[in-house]
Amino acid sequence: MNSTLNPKRTISELKDLRSFTADENGAQRVAFTPKWMETRAWLKKKLSELPVETHVDAAGNLWSTLRGQSQRALLLGGHMDSVPNGGWLDGCLDELAALETLRRIAAQYNGRPPVTVRLVDWADEEGARFGKSLFGSSACSGNLNMDEARVLKDKDGVPLPDALKKVGIEFDRVKESGQELKNAAAYLELHIEQGPVLLDLDLPLGAVLGTFGVERHAITFHGQAAHSGSTPMHRRKDAFLAAAKMSPEIYRIAERSTGGVCTIGSCTTKPGIVTSVVADCTITLDQRHLDAAALAKMLREAKEASQHFAKEGNVEVSWERLWQIEPVLFHPDLVEMCSDAISETCGKMHRLPSGPLHDAAEVARAGVPTVMMFVQSLHGISHNKIEDTKEEHLEMAVVAFDKLAEKAMEWVRGET
Amino acid sequence: MNSTLNPKRTISELKDLRSFTADENGAQRVAFTPKWMETRAWLKKKLSELPVETHVDAAGNLWSTLRGQSQRALLLGGHMDSVPNGGWLDGCLDELAALETLRRIAAQYNGRPPVTVRLVDWADEEGARFGKSLFGSSACSGNLNMDEARVLKDKDGVPLPDALKKVGIEFDRVKESGQELKNAAAYLELHIEQGPVLLDLDLPLGAVLGTFGVERHAITFHGQAAHSGSTPMHRRKDAFLAAAKMSPEIYRIAERSTGGVCTIGSCTTKPGIVTSVVADCTITLDQRHLDAAALAKMLREAKEASQHFAKEGNVEVSWERLWQIEPVLFHPDLVEMCSDAISETCGKMHRLPSGPLHDAAEVARAGVPTVMMFVQSLHGISHNKIEDTKEEHLEMAVVAFDKLAEKAMEWVRGET
Repeated sequence: MNSTLNPKRTISELKDLRSFTADENGAQRVAFTPKWMETRAWLKKKLSELPVETHVDAAGNLWSTLRGQSQRALLLGGHMDSVPNGGWLDGCLDELAALETLRRIAAQYNGRPPVTVRLVDWADEEGARFGKSLFGSSACSGNLNMDEARVLKDKDGVPLPDALKKVGIEFDRVKESGQELKNAAAYLELHIEQGPVLLDLDLPLGAVLGTFGVERHAITFHGQAAHSGSTPMHRRKDAFLAAAKMSPEIYRIAERSTGGVCTIGSCTTKPGIVTSVVADCTITLDQRHLDAAALAKMLREAKEASQHFAKEGNVEVSWERLWQIEPVLFHPDLVEMCSDAISETCGKMHRLPSGPLHDAAEVARAGVPTVMMFVQSLHGISHNKIEDTKEEHLEMAVVAFDKLAEKAMEWVRGET
Repeated sequence: MNSTLNPKRTISELKDLRSFTADENGAQRVAFTPKWMETRAWLKKKLSELPVETHVDAAGNLWSTLRGQSQRALLLGGHMDSVPNGGWLDGCLDELAALETLRRIAAQYNGRPPVTVRLVDWADEEGARFGKSLFGSSACSGNLNMDEARVLKDKDGVPLPDALKKVGIEFDRVKESGQELKNAAAYLELHIEQGPVLLDLDLPLGAVLGTFGVERHAITFHGQAAHSGSTPMHRRKDAFLAAAKMSPEIYRIAERSTGGVCTIGSCTTKPGIVTSVVADCTITLDQRHLDAAALAKMLREAKEASQHFAKEGNVEVSWERLWQIEPVLFHPDLVEMCSDAISETCGKMHRLPSGPLHDAAEVARAGVPTVMMFVQSLHGISHNKIEDTKEEHLEMAVVAFDKLAEKAMEWVRGET
């Protein structure tokens, strides 16, 4: 065994993976599909060359364990599944960097490192088929809502429990996956940033402070349909006018919040015809912040603004919560180690929150000290075939992630 | 024959008509349907009691002629067709007030008035089935676009020419209807206002100055989809933000125009999901004004605003014209007569433009001196089963319309 880390091998493996899992529209490794099973088989074959024990847990997550002198385990994770027409790095960079790090540790410590090191490939991070992301990790963390998950269907009407059965997973037992975390002492995950922050700062790598809390709502303004030709402007109850005023307002709310983001992603109008004032207008609002109090303030300000605009326009407004999750802060010691590993690798460092959710958030919510490392995304874009990262940055990412793993192993040993 | 006008009979006839053409959802006299044919037969029976010649022209319009000492003809018009689930007055009040006036004139002049008087029931004013309003009157005026009309289909896929054939109308000959206007010297039409202007002024009747010109456009802002969690606010190309800013702006544009109206009736967003910044946003804009220069200015200001907001938000904007029509001004002498007839009837008067289009606009565009009279609408609402007008206002409307007809007859005789 060669005890030297080989980041170029990771890039080569990412390209191999792309060669049989992507088509002209991008990556097609959607969870629980034959292509995903093929990806898993490819990964297992690579793991079989290492002195590890590999199995799939009750939720479909794959675990590969390198036993150490201590049972206390350092977890290295990611996900091999992609959205349809996805990028070549989202998820599998994490996994293949973890694999390379596992190889280096296994070689350096002759198959018996000071603490146990485990690689995990989470099942269905993307939620592309059933609209529920973080499936495997939320089953493992215990946060999966079984009642909601049981009735999820894909676009062909196939229920999630039936799709799981086809790949050997029994829906009612998925939370038994939680026992995998029994000896977990730390969790590390590398990921592409999927945003433009590092790109704008011209930095290859960043230490992630945590994942944003999210408030997701549908806001409906209720006005009155009226003839576009015969209704004077001052007599209108224009639901679109009130909804439209929310758009510049959420930019002001986000700016005041220092670090939060707000998005109106969808707008629908009824009756929605060219000759009528809009009677009902529904917009969706997605608000995110790393600080729970700041997130609550953003939500409160949006509600107040909606009520103000409704009153101003003589219309009514109602809110419906679609989803929410609290912010998840990563472990300060691990964030520090991550920052050090990055500085040692490329001399420059930045700390940033994660806008998107990741499996790491579920692991952290389960009480396992966690941190993520981000590598720059070109175009700041993911979930798209144009998703890309410079090869020199990918190599730095593998090096820095490996350094972080070494520091974390030391830390876990010290904590034991 | 009783030579006294009987406005109560008009109300009674409107109620009779409602009894067999409305259901619990409102009036169902959609053009070219069996219920509309039944309505026509009912009207023809009433006309057959008068000394008139009645026929249907090449476009399906019904004409009933009371020959006078002069061939020069005063036309009294309206439409018996309704939208689905329509009101009990829209269109048929015009027709039945014209009928009552025709009765009075026939009786008073012993069947031979000084000028010819003709009642016309226009075919398919509403355009409810094929989405093309003013069918019969635009065929008669010569303004019907044959290429566009030929390919119109109803929601069951039936082409307009086939539907016309079923009621005995040959599509390619509809413009022969134009010969009906040969001796037309003036055209009068009574209509419910369909808006709240007279209601707000607490006036029963108004003289109509003309019909608004209309500019109807689809405006699309082109931005970029981006993850709602990972994209900083200042990096966004948010198509909805630019589109939303147009809504308060069109209120300012309408206010500056003095008398115009602007409506954004529909908004669609793509990809239109809660987790993405809007890439493309299309709104429809309907602008109306009685003054052509003011309408052109409103359109220019909207275009400039859209370009400003696009630039401000780093997005692109494109415009597509959906439809336009120039303003139609009614004849000043007839507007004056209409005002006098109203003042003589109820002591109060108001002049106002018409926001909605009417058959009268097509007749005016064909060069026939034209005027309309409006009667107050309760709730300012039409195209709805709750459409209504106080009975005392309906009676006043018939009286005032009859006075207007007498004045117009005198005018036509004088002009001959």
